[in-house]
Amino acid sequence: MNKLTIIKIGGNVLDNPSLLQSVLDSFAAMEGNKILIHGGGKIANVLMKELGIEPKMVDGRRITDEKTLEIVTQVYAGLINKNLVSQLQARGCNAIGLTGADANTIPAVKRPVKTIDYGFVGDIDTSKINANTISGLLKQGLVPVFAPITHDTKGNLLNTNADTIASSVAIALAGMYSVKLIYCFEKNGVLSNPDDDTTVIPEITEKTFVGYKEQGVIHSGMIPKLDNAYAALKAGVASIVICGPEAFKSANAIPGTTIVL
Amino acid sequence: MNKLTIIKIGGNVLDNPSLLQSVLDSFAAMEGNKILIHGGGKIANVLMKELGIEPKMVDGRRITDEKTLEIVTQVYAGLINKNLVSQLQARGCNAIGLTGADANTIPAVKRPVKTIDYGFVGDIDTSKINANTISGLLKQGLVPVFAPITHDTKGNLLNTNADTIASSVAIALAGMYSVKLIYCFEKNGVLSNPDDDTTVIPEITEKTFVGYKEQGVIHSGMIPKLDNAYAALKAGVASIVICGPEAFKSANAIPGTTIVL
Repeated sequence: MNKLTIIKIGGNVLDNPSLLQSVLDSFAAMEGNKILIHGGGKIANVLMKELGIEPKMVDGRRITDEKTLEIVTQVYAGLINKNLVSQLQARGCNAIGLTGADANTIPAVKRPVKTIDYGFVGDIDTSKINANTISGLLKQGLVPVFAPITHDTKGNLLNTNADTIASSVAIALAGMYSVKLIYCFEKNGVLSNPDDDTTVIPEITEKTFVGYKEQGVIHSGMIPKLDNAYAALKAGVASIVICGPEAFKSANAIPGTTIVL
Repeated sequence: MNKLTIIKIGGNVLDNPSLLQSVLDSFAAMEGNKILIHGGGKIANVLMKELGIEPKMVDGRRITDEKTLEIVTQVYAGLINKNLVSQLQARGCNAIGLTGADANTIPAVKRPVKTIDYGFVGDIDTSKINANTISGLLKQGLVPVFAPITHDTKGNLLNTNADTIASSVAIALAGMYSVKLIYCFEKNGVLSNPDDDTTVIPEITEKTFVGYKEQGVIHSGMIPKLDNAYAALKAGVASIVICGPEAFKSANAIPGTTIVL
């Protein structure tokens, strides 16, 4: 099976120009099939503030009303996505920027309202992802760069978690490629001591994950990231690594944390 | 040779929801290879005003400074492009939104500074357009939707006239397809009396164009549009029509103005 590398870069990497340049250098230099997936960063909040719009949060999660959807569409699919594409093109990487609406690559459904109405937020059914279309772009020698926006196939765009897009696309393509999924964020991996960047845990199995959670070593935002990772491994993704931008710099660099079943 | 229809819709169509819906209905229903190219509309100016940025104009033409480039990238490549894509997808049309940076489809050069520095504005060399890549997307059953943004292949995005993108893409693909280029704007065609929408000139030859210019019937913004059209016809584009949204509504509709050599 052909290999495919999917790299997700988070907001903290996007917001740091020197980290970002180093990741783009490495990504552009990588051989073979590859896909970049990016999060949002702080720029959307900055624009909202400039426009006098207060971000709506419930239990620490963003509510995407109509005006917020307009702004994240502008910033994620326009400003960030197209700048990443042009910067990759400048490095000789034939990037093509996409949302899940483009070529209907990632259809989603608006999150059903239970106790909280999250607004225009998309949930992905992995089986609906158009793997053949994405594979067709890869076969044309193109490098898809996904913004964290999907659509409901009825004319509405949907704000969608970039980690979820990354694991969902990885799962959808696992039947056609041997997929390596890399989550690149600001730390060098999952740390046993969050204040010490040298305490990268080299490997986390599903069993040790339970222990780390109980000890409180792994908590808050890292838990859903790892839950997503285990779901992806069980669905056929070949390997998953959580690492920092350093991991791309040289063969001797800190390789990050490998997630294994 | 296979047929390809390229439709360019201007700002006045984008800014009028009912006109836009009718054009999208017709475009989605069209058989065969097709490409949509859109202009900017008023939304970028509205956002600039909300952000307290004064549009810079010299001799009636916009100067694209760094902040303006950010805003047009957001609005054209993000908000407008992705909404058009999702609305076409809702109509069963497999649209894929692109700028000229995406897949390096339309490389351009930053306009050289002569008497005026237009800033981040792109001029297109038609021979550099990656016709094979665009054709590859068409062959995959996709419908490219271009925003009026290109790039300089060195990491900079460039604000680019949508009419020019339309004629340049038409010329670049004229070697591979029999290309029909349609400019769709708010009037029903080129009018002999601008105040009377029923005075559509059915056909303008290069010779009658000279006469209309001398009489002042054709003036201001329509002149570069027609200059572009004649250049495209001479470069191999099969046919060119300037029409209004009405032209798409039925077989009996006002067909607009045909431009012939």
